[in-house]
Amino acid sequence: NIDQDRLEGTMKEQAQIGSTENGGLYRLTLSDEDKEVRDWFYKQMEAEGLEIRVDEFGNMFGRREGRNAEKGAVLVGSHLDSQPYGGIYDGALGVVAALEFIRTLNDEDIITEHPIEIVNWTNEEGSRYQPAMQGSGVWAGNHDLYEEYNKTDEEGVRFEDELERIGYKGETSAEPSEDYEGYLELHIEQGPYLEEKGKDVGIVTGIVGFTWGAVTYYGEADHTGPTPMHYRKDALAGAADVITQIRRLPNMLGERTVGSTGHMDVQPNSINTIPGEVTFTWGFRDPSDEIIDEAFNRVLAEAEAAAERESLDWEWEERMRAPSVDFDETNINAVENAAEELEYDAMRIFSGAGHDATHAADIMDTSMVFAVSENGKSHTEEEFTTWDHCYTAANTLANAALNLATE
Amino acid sequence: NIDQDRLEGTMKEQAQIGSTENGGLYRLTLSDEDKEVRDWFYKQMEAEGLEIRVDEFGNMFGRREGRNAEKGAVLVGSHLDSQPYGGIYDGALGVVAALEFIRTLNDEDIITEHPIEIVNWTNEEGSRYQPAMQGSGVWAGNHDLYEEYNKTDEEGVRFEDELERIGYKGETSAEPSEDYEGYLELHIEQGPYLEEKGKDVGIVTGIVGFTWGAVTYYGEADHTGPTPMHYRKDALAGAADVITQIRRLPNMLGERTVGSTGHMDVQPNSINTIPGEVTFTWGFRDPSDEIIDEAFNRVLAEAEAAAERESLDWEWEERMRAPSVDFDETNINAVENAAEELEYDAMRIFSGAGHDATHAADIMDTSMVFAVSENGKSHTEEEFTTWDHCYTAANTLANAALNLATE
Ligand SMILES: NC(=O)NCCC(=O)O
Ligand SMILES: NC(=O)NCCC(=O)O
Repeated sequence: NIDQDRLEGTMKEQAQIGSTENGGLYRLTLSDEDKEVRDWFYKQMEAEGLEIRVDEFGNMFGRREGRNAEKGAVLVGSHLDSQPYGGIYDGALGVVAALEFIRTLNDEDIITEHPIEIVNWTNEEGSRYQPAMQGSGVWAGNHDLYEEYNKTDEEGVRFEDELERIGYKGETSAEPSEDYEGYLELHIEQGPYLEEKGKDVGIVTGIVGFTWGAVTYYGEADHTGPTPMHYRKDALAGAADVITQIRRLPNMLGERTVGSTGHMDVQPNSINTIPGEVTFTWGFRDPSDEIIDEAFNRVLAEAEAAAERESLDWEWEERMRAPSVDFDETNINAVENAAEELEYDAMRIFSGAGHDATHAADIMDTSMVFAVSENGKSHTEEEFTTWDHCYTAANTLANAALNLATE
Repeated sequence: NIDQDRLEGTMKEQAQIGSTENGGLYRLTLSDEDKEVRDWFYKQMEAEGLEIRVDEFGNMFGRREGRNAEKGAVLVGSHLDSQPYGGIYDGALGVVAALEFIRTLNDEDIITEHPIEIVNWTNEEGSRYQPAMQGSGVWAGNHDLYEEYNKTDEEGVRFEDELERIGYKGETSAEPSEDYEGYLELHIEQGPYLEEKGKDVGIVTGIVGFTWGAVTYYGEADHTGPTPMHYRKDALAGAADVITQIRRLPNMLGERTVGSTGHMDVQPNSINTIPGEVTFTWGFRDPSDEIIDEAFNRVLAEAEAAAERESLDWEWEERMRAPSVDFDETNINAVENAAEELEYDAMRIFSGAGHDATHAADIMDTSMVFAVSENGKSHTEEEFTTWDHCYTAANTLANAALNLATE
C-alpha cells in the first residue's frame, strides 16, 4: 500500500505552482509555471534515484531498473500542465500517483522483474496549443515532430521556441526507446458517473473519439449605427448562428455525443463596430468514429450555410481528430484485478475525456484508473476529488502496475 | 474659402498619431495616443493665438474673441479619439475643419461679431468607456461628472485616473461657460446615403436615439468531453442564442431600426472548457424613442428566455440611452444656406450615428455638416472620404459658422 499522507502532501506541493486565487491552477503548457512544475518534478525523480530523460518534445521520463534487463518497461504517468483556471487534480494526480508508486517501491526495497518508467507528457490539455495529448501523440508517431514544433498559440508564439525558452527541449528522440510492456495512467474521471453509481474507483475500457476545429468568418467591420441592416456582413451574427447549432447537433447524432464551442475571438470587439472577423472553435466527441465523421460534416455544413446567409467569407481548420480507442483486456484486467485484491467497489467506464493513454494504446497494452470526481466537474477551479478517492485510485494504479511489472 | 491643401496636410499630420499598419487609427480615448494628439492639437491652437481652456473632463476649448463682448460664442468642433482600428476621418475631420476655419479667419484678418470657440470633446467614441459622447454629455449636464469619473474600462482602469495620467484633467468646470450662440459640427456621414444619391454634402437634421447595454451570463465552466449535454450550463450557448435574435429584432421593430452585438468576452475561453461566463453587448438605434424602448424591452426578454433555456444566472446593465434629437431650423438653415451660397448639391439627412451635437443641442441651436463617406464604411480602417469631399464639407462648415458669427 502507498502512503496516503505523502500522496496528499505531494499533491498539495505541486498545487502551489501556478495556483489561482480560488484554489485552482493556471499552468498552461510551456509557460513559466509549467517550467517551474517540471523543475519540481525533476527534483522529485532525482530524489528517488531515477534515471531521467527529457525528450526533444519535452516529455519527461524517470526510469527505475528491474531485475531482468530483457523485459520491457512498464510505463506509468500523466501530465502536469493545466487548463486556464483548471483544477489541481486533472493530470497532476496521475503524475503524483506514479511518483508515489516509485517511492513505495523504494521504501520497501522491492525489485520488480520489469523496469518501471514514470512520465510527464507535454501539453496534454490542448488549450494553448492544439491538438491535446500532443506530447504523447508525437512520441507515439501519430503526429509529425516538426509540424507540432511549428504550431503557434493565440499570440503567435511557436511551440518549439517556448519549449527551448523554458529549457525543456531535451536530448533524446521523441519516440519509444524500447519495447514497452504496457502503459497505465491514473486520472480523475472528470464526469459524474462513478459518483452517481457510488463506486470507489473506475476501470477504464476506452476513450471517445474527437473532432476539434475552428471556423473563421470574415465579414465587414463597419459602424453599428448608420450602416443599414441589409448592408451588414456581421461575422459575429454568423458565428452565433453556428454556435446555437453546435449546442443542438449532439441531440441529432447519438446518445453519448457531446459538442461545444469553448473558444472565441471577436475583432475589433468594440461595442459600436460590427465584428469584421470572428474565430470560434468546435469540439465533438463520441465513442463511434462514424458519429465523429458525421459531426464534422454537419458542423461544416452549418458553417457554410451561416456564411451564405450572412454573406461572409470563411475558412476552417480541423485542429484535432482522434479516433475512439478500445483498451486491450490484458491491462483492463490488471486494473480490475488490483481493485478486486484491494476490495474496492470498481466499475468499468468508457472515458469521455481524451488522455495520453490514447496514443500509448497504439504502442502497447494500455488501460487507465479513474478516481471519482465530485459533481463530475473539471476544467474549472471547482474540480474536486477527496483525498480518500485519490488514495483509492493511486493504490489501484500502484498494485496494477506492480502486477504488470512482476510477471 | 478655406485652404484645401492645408486642410489635407493637417489631416495627414493628425493621422500619424496612433496610426495603424493599414492606414487607420487606434487612438482610444485617454490612451497614450490620445495624449499625443491632444498635445498636437494644443500646439495648433496656440499657434493660432487662441485662448485655451481644458475642463475637468478633458474637453479642450480654444477661443477667438469677436467684436462684441456681449454676444455668445459660436462653438465648432468634434473629437480626436478613435475606435480600435478605426478610420482617420471619424471625428478628426471635424476638429481639423474647425481649426482650418480659425486659420482662414486669421489669414484674412476677419473679426467676427461673435466670439468663436473650437472644441475637442473627450471620449466621443464610447468604445473604451461607455457611454459614447461622454465629454459633451457631462458638459451639457446630461451625465454626472463623478459617476463618469468612476467608469472603468475592460481592464478595470478608472476614467479619472487615466485622465490625470495623460495630464488632461483641466482646471475649468465641465459646463457651458457662457450663453453660446450655437453649435456646428462637421463629421463624415458614416453611412451610404450621400454617396448613393450623388450629393456633395449633407445637412443634418437630427440624430437617432440609442440603447446600449450588456448582458452577463453565468453558467458553469466544465469539461467539454465527459460532461453530459444535459448537465451543461453553457454561457456561450445562451449568448449565441440572444445574438442571433439581436440580428433579427430590427426587422420586427422599424424601417430604420438597427441592432448589433459588437463586443463579447468569453471566460475561460479554452477550446475544451464549457464557457462559464460570457458578457456580450447590445446596441439598437432608431429615430423613434418608442422603438428604442421596445428594442430594450425585447432584448431583455430574449436574454431572460435564453437564460432560462440554458439554466444560467444573469445580469444586465444599460450602458447608454440617448434620446433621438431633432436639430432646430436656425442652424439647419445656416448650413443649408452656406451650401447653397457655395453652390454645392446638398441634401438633408438624419444621422444614424451619435455625435457630440446630441448634447450640444440641449444647450443651444445646433446642426451638423456631413461629408460624403465612400461606401458608407466607418469604424474600420477602410473608412474613406476624398479630399474633395473633405474640402466641400469643411468649406460649408466654415461659411455656416461665419454666418452665425456675423449676425
Ligand atoms: N483529460 C483531459 O482533460 N484532457 C484534455 C483533453 C480533452 O479535452 O479531453
Ligand atoms: N459618430 C460616431 O461614430 N460616434 C460614436 C458613437 C456612435 O456609435 O454613434
